[in-house]
Amino acid sequence: KMLRRVLCTVLFMGALPSLAEVSQGHISVVLLGATGDLAKKYLWQGLFQLYMDQVSSGHSFTFHGAALTALEPGQRLMFDVLKKLACPPDESPNRCAVLKDQFLKLSQYHQLKTAENYTVLNREIETLLRQEGLKEAGRIFYFSVPPFAYTEIARHINSSCRPPPGAWLRVVLEKPFGHDLESAQQLAAELRSFFREEEMYRVDHYLGKQAVAHILPFRDQNRQFLDPIWNRHHVERVEIVLKETVDAKGRTSFYEQYGVIRDVLQNHLTEALMFLTMELPANVSRAEEVLQCKLQAFQSLRGLEKNSAVLGQYQAYASQVQEELQKTQGYISTTPTFAGVLIHSDNLRWEGVPFLLTSGKALDERVGYVRVLFKNRAYCTQSETLRDAGHSQCKAKQIIFYIGHGALNTPAVLVSRNLFRPVMPEGSWREAVSQSDLHIFGQPLSDYYVYSPVKERDAYSVLISNIYHGRKDFFITTENLLASWGFWTPLLDSISHQPLRLYPGGVENQHLLDFEMVSGEVAFTLAEPVEVLNPNRLMPSDYKTIQSKYRHSPLVSAWSEDLISQLASDIEKTASRTVARSGQFHLALSGGSSPVVLFQRLARHHYAFPWKHTHIWLVDERCVPLTDTESNFFSLHNHLLQSVRVPYFNVHPMPVHLNQRLCVEEDRGTELYAKEIMALVANASFDLVLLGVGTDGHTASLFPRSENGLEGAQTVVLTESPVKPHQRMSLSLPLINKARRVFVLVLGKGKHGITTLLSRVGHEPRKWPVSGVSPSSGQLVWYVDYEALLG
Amino acid sequence: KMLRRVLCTVLFMGALPSLAEVSQGHISVVLLGATGDLAKKYLWQGLFQLYMDQVSSGHSFTFHGAALTALEPGQRLMFDVLKKLACPPDESPNRCAVLKDQFLKLSQYHQLKTAENYTVLNREIETLLRQEGLKEAGRIFYFSVPPFAYTEIARHINSSCRPPPGAWLRVVLEKPFGHDLESAQQLAAELRSFFREEEMYRVDHYLGKQAVAHILPFRDQNRQFLDPIWNRHHVERVEIVLKETVDAKGRTSFYEQYGVIRDVLQNHLTEALMFLTMELPANVSRAEEVLQCKLQAFQSLRGLEKNSAVLGQYQAYASQVQEELQKTQGYISTTPTFAGVLIHSDNLRWEGVPFLLTSGKALDERVGYVRVLFKNRAYCTQSETLRDAGHSQCKAKQIIFYIGHGALNTPAVLVSRNLFRPVMPEGSWREAVSQSDLHIFGQPLSDYYVYSPVKERDAYSVLISNIYHGRKDFFITTENLLASWGFWTPLLDSISHQPLRLYPGGVENQHLLDFEMVSGEVAFTLAEPVEVLNPNRLMPSDYKTIQSKYRHSPLVSAWSEDLISQLASDIEKTASRTVARSGQFHLALSGGSSPVVLFQRLARHHYAFPWKHTHIWLVDERCVPLTDTESNFFSLHNHLLQSVRVPYFNVHPMPVHLNQRLCVEEDRGTELYAKEIMALVANASFDLVLLGVGTDGHTASLFPRSENGLEGAQTVVLTESPVKPHQRMSLSLPLINKARRVFVLVLGKGKHGITTLLSRVGHEPRKWPVSGVSPSSGQLVWYVDYEALLG
Repeated sequence: KMLRRVLCTVLFMGALPSLAEVSQGHISVVLLGATGDLAKKYLWQGLFQLYMDQVSSGHSFTFHGAALTALEPGQRLMFDVLKKLACPPDESPNRCAVLKDQFLKLSQYHQLKTAENYTVLNREIETLLRQEGLKEAGRIFYFSVPPFAYTEIARHINSSCRPPPGAWLRVVLEKPFGHDLESAQQLAAELRSFFREEEMYRVDHYLGKQAVAHILPFRDQNRQFLDPIWNRHHVERVEIVLKETVDAKGRTSFYEQYGVIRDVLQNHLTEALMFLTMELPANVSRAEEVLQCKLQAFQSLRGLEKNSAVLGQYQAYASQVQEELQKTQGYISTTPTFAGVLIHSDNLRWEGVPFLLTSGKALDERVGYVRVLFKNRAYCTQSETLRDAGHSQCKAKQIIFYIGHGALNTPAVLVSRNLFRPVMPEGSWREAVSQSDLHIFGQPLSDYYVYSPVKERDAYSVLISNIYHGRKDFFITTENLLASWGFWTPLLDSISHQPLRLYPGGVENQHLLDFEMVSGEVAFTLAEPVEVLNPNRLMPSDYKTIQSKYRHSPLVSAWSEDLISQLASDIEKTASRTVARSGQFHLALSGGSSPVVLFQRLARHHYAFPWKHTHIWLVDERCVPLTDTESNFFSLHNHLLQSVRVPYFNVHPMPVHLNQRLCVEEDRGTELYAKEIMALVANASFDLVLLGVGTDGHTASLFPRSENGLEGAQTVVLTESPVKPHQRMSLSLPLINKARRVFVLVLGKGKHGITTLLSRVGHEPRKWPVSGVSPSSGQLVWYVDYEALLG
Repeated sequence: KMLRRVLCTVLFMGALPSLAEVSQGHISVVLLGATGDLAKKYLWQGLFQLYMDQVSSGHSFTFHGAALTALEPGQRLMFDVLKKLACPPDESPNRCAVLKDQFLKLSQYHQLKTAENYTVLNREIETLLRQEGLKEAGRIFYFSVPPFAYTEIARHINSSCRPPPGAWLRVVLEKPFGHDLESAQQLAAELRSFFREEEMYRVDHYLGKQAVAHILPFRDQNRQFLDPIWNRHHVERVEIVLKETVDAKGRTSFYEQYGVIRDVLQNHLTEALMFLTMELPANVSRAEEVLQCKLQAFQSLRGLEKNSAVLGQYQAYASQVQEELQKTQGYISTTPTFAGVLIHSDNLRWEGVPFLLTSGKALDERVGYVRVLFKNRAYCTQSETLRDAGHSQCKAKQIIFYIGHGALNTPAVLVSRNLFRPVMPEGSWREAVSQSDLHIFGQPLSDYYVYSPVKERDAYSVLISNIYHGRKDFFITTENLLASWGFWTPLLDSISHQPLRLYPGGVENQHLLDFEMVSGEVAFTLAEPVEVLNPNRLMPSDYKTIQSKYRHSPLVSAWSEDLISQLASDIEKTASRTVARSGQFHLALSGGSSPVVLFQRLARHHYAFPWKHTHIWLVDERCVPLTDTESNFFSLHNHLLQSVRVPYFNVHPMPVHLNQRLCVEEDRGTELYAKEIMALVANASFDLVLLGVGTDGHTASLFPRSENGLEGAQTVVLTESPVKPHQRMSLSLPLINKARRVFVLVLGKGKHGITTLLSRVGHEPRKWPVSGVSPSSGQLVWYVDYEALLG
């Protein structure tokens, strides 16, 4: 009866919907956590805005606040909030007052605690609709509750509150969506047992920020200008920044578990990054296409390494944590409150363009922006002083999606006047008259076309409207979420050892948090000040590498990342010296997983490597086609060869695939390879052979008790592996031992056993083939990481 | 006796040399053209400076002015000049007066006109030395005469004026050293018949400019800072600029033949470029090593194309030429007075870094500089307004060798303070106190460390001192000269068709001469104004391409460069569409010289080409190893494959080299290739086959009356070429005709005959194999340039 009353009221007002329109169906919105902070601050206001916007859409609405609180106090709490709902400045006060009154009448409080409560709620909705003779269009359940409550609520909704067939269900979830890839997967799996993918709306409120939400439409509407320049040839760098002045005080119990990367970068900034880097679908208003393109953009991201990030913590954080979490005085938090991360996308469009994501608490200003800086490709012949101040092509060219706060203190889109005059949707964005002599991003505001929203809208009201419209592209799908965690988790794992730079907070930070890009990595610009928070002060990571002896040969040891750096640089040094001496460098590389990191390191950090004069040989190969993902060569190609310029003629894959068959003796692949080596490598003595070690002591594809390759005159042999694919081709031990240098790389805890064993045994190649590696006149060096060495 | 008198005078002065020191030997300096402009303005002053500097070196000197003028008037003219010689400000006036007096006494005038005159001069020197009992150290002949006089003078010196064995001869030559590669070679050959290479000192007075001369020492003394950043990873761009305010008035008879490129870029700016890009020898004071490295730097320069330059001419130039050279009113000069040229060096250090060389007359200011701008790799977390103004890493980083004039009006070396404090030789450079609030290159002068010379020295006095010291690295060797002309001549040839942009001159030029880099080329930033000087207004170059029919198939025709652009972009379009449809693109490419330009174009201008999904096949191959420079694959690799990222697996060279022998039937290379095609190319139908045509009508390696390949079932065949290397492997005509698209490229006047013939004949593959190209269900397009089409 409540609803009918409202409908009647509505009918008295000319502009409001007729019954025919109302026949679009009814929508029930259930706000769980109706008396919580988020609900108070944003959600009810957003729902009221939805009601104001959609009152004449043809849908009818009821709003159900819910919480654990009992009916009466809950009701009181909730209506205290509702009474304070504000009227937007662009709405006529009369209309708003009427609508607010209606909104209050359409709203109800429910205690939702037990299974029974949910059943009752469901019954009430059904009854109401039957009484009013309304068709049900759908139900929205907004989870504004802590994540630990998700599963239980989800179960209840799924079992008792689903709308009848033909009506939709939309459940809206608030972050955090897990803590890393594993926990996110687990949470996703749980939710999946209750809801279908299309029913879930995961909120990242950044997607509701007007400037962020406009990135894709902007790219779409300005295709004509952007198409030629939205790529690595024209974009110099991109900065995606959210700076806060507040600190984590009062929130450390949450913050201490998350830190700035999980809190801001993994979600908000990453989403903005995706909108910039993704390919533009033909139709940006088709959610499906947008989500598809976004997902593909994730796949192009280059993996992050420890040195992809610089991390800081404001000085007061430690004591705040000690106080709020009742920790002892000596407690050291390793949670970063500042992060600058360098991201690369490895597709053709963005390869090499640095994307800098930065966020932190206790910084000098509150501001959020996405800044695309273009390369300066102009030469201005006229001297600066004589140049027309106008649209000089020598001025910086940039496009900025200004999210809010900061000097402008409004969302905005800025485009350098020497770029182009952007097409903006007239109804929603208008050109701002630059009244001030403000400087922004190094230039006076008058150098830009500046657009701001006609109506400034709160992110939540944008998102609630998008939930209503079923615009799934404004939300985080499960695939999207897992892709993002998949991208960030390795960094989160690897930085737990990283020292944090302490900063005083506010303007005092000065240049302390400035950072620089150096060959694909970032580092703070200023040298390490005295105060550094390094939880591993006593761990060997302070020493880059330890030099010692292992099996009577030199041993280099370090944490794996440092070890790989050292090895890569040793290989480069060897290569350069060898090329200087003999004009070429013959490098034989092993397959397996350990070298992959090495290959990547060589590809990305060793620009001076004399690839042009390097010959690449394989130490061993699996008997599969070269284009098979199992092939050692395929992996080598993927991680190294495709990124560097080794001449085609200098690449020597093993001929495992001849006459359309694999490793058949009569095809004499081993002979072919042996001949090739003889023809090109002086003395058949490789300049450098890189080996690994298996847990069984195998090296190359020479396995314990192998019939071939451990001794004898044959240089290239077919062997049998105990694991699939069984057939292998390998260099023989005698050939390996002719090399001028042999480096053996051993990584990971899994190798601790064999590493310990090998340190005790002598020359027993039949038992442990690697123990037979002993270059007759060359040098042998072991590269063993701490995990393999120390367990 | 004159000399003895001088020596006595000298002995009276304590600081001057003793006889023992004088025993270092005697040097005779002969200045040819002793009364000419250059001599008056710079050379005598430079010789006087040499004398002042070296009077106590242990060498004794005599100075012989020479000209065609008879003895007495010549003497008078010359001594008028000598009497006006200035004393440098840092020299004590007393000492200078004494030395000037001595210098005048040591100087003599000679008429050098006939062979006899030279013999006499030689005798006089010999006599003098004998009389004084002095050993001869060497003779310097400075050619300050027009180039047409060179040969004659050189012959006389060589035949009559060589010093005795044990003493050196140095002849100093002034530019121009030719007009293009051919004329420079000719001049070099003539000179070589008179002088040994080490005897010749070709002057480029830029190498005597203090800031230019300090580039190498600067790089050497600051290795520690520069080593990590002097490369493509850190350098954003380099500008080498010489702007003049004067125009060519009064000098058009010279200028009209040369233009700005020959006058300034080919020599001065190129030399500065070499000092920047060359690898640093271990010892920069060893002339030999320096020259060697410089020569290597030339070899890395990427060839220039028509669009590597923007060209202009100041408006008054035409009337000045008409007046001074008595041309008719309608005479149009095609001589550029302004040029901006984009140069790339293709070595690992500099690949991709733009070097912009700019010079012009009638510009807004007189200034010369070499500016190295580094990439901005920093992110400054503090907002601009709150940043410490000091050494922020976010400010521009640059190193400038300021040659002179301009705002600073002194030679200088500037290094951004956020880079490093440079090491400068204390005796010769001192830190300048920046007194002014001058802005230079976008920053206040206080942002730089600024160094200027302790003693400002004129270029000629620097060079004369270097001649005396035998520092050949301050001069242009023959190899260096020819390398430079070899680099510039193709551009000079190709721009004779280029339109020139007219500019008013001075500050009026505004943005008219600003230019921009766009994918490896340059273009003026502002759209073409109405007034353009285009001598080819009526030529078809105004129309990018002509579309028509040839042999009943579509014909695309244009000047060769435009044609290649069109063809490359058509290939890219085909590739993109094919990959979108089928996921891969099978492209079969021909050998020969015509495709080379196409390969380069594809490598440099088509970044969006879907190389990752392209398979590269060969249309034909010569029976030589793939690494032989004659190999089609080698050329393809060189010009295309090494610059793009085609996966290793997608590259399919023809197997002409099997079992260490070439194209032996039993090795069944043709079968192998046929099988590979069958296995990978659907239907054995290539997506695109690119063919050429020989003057005999051959295409692929299918020659007239070939026994194989013109018909029949064989898809890959061995054939015989009438020219070496005779043995070939080729796709057959039937296979080619299965392709979905066939493009035939025909370039150059040499093909006009066959092009005309083919336009008249029908299908006669036995006579003219290319006439048999007729895809059974695919498309055939002819790309024929104007020269081939119109003769």
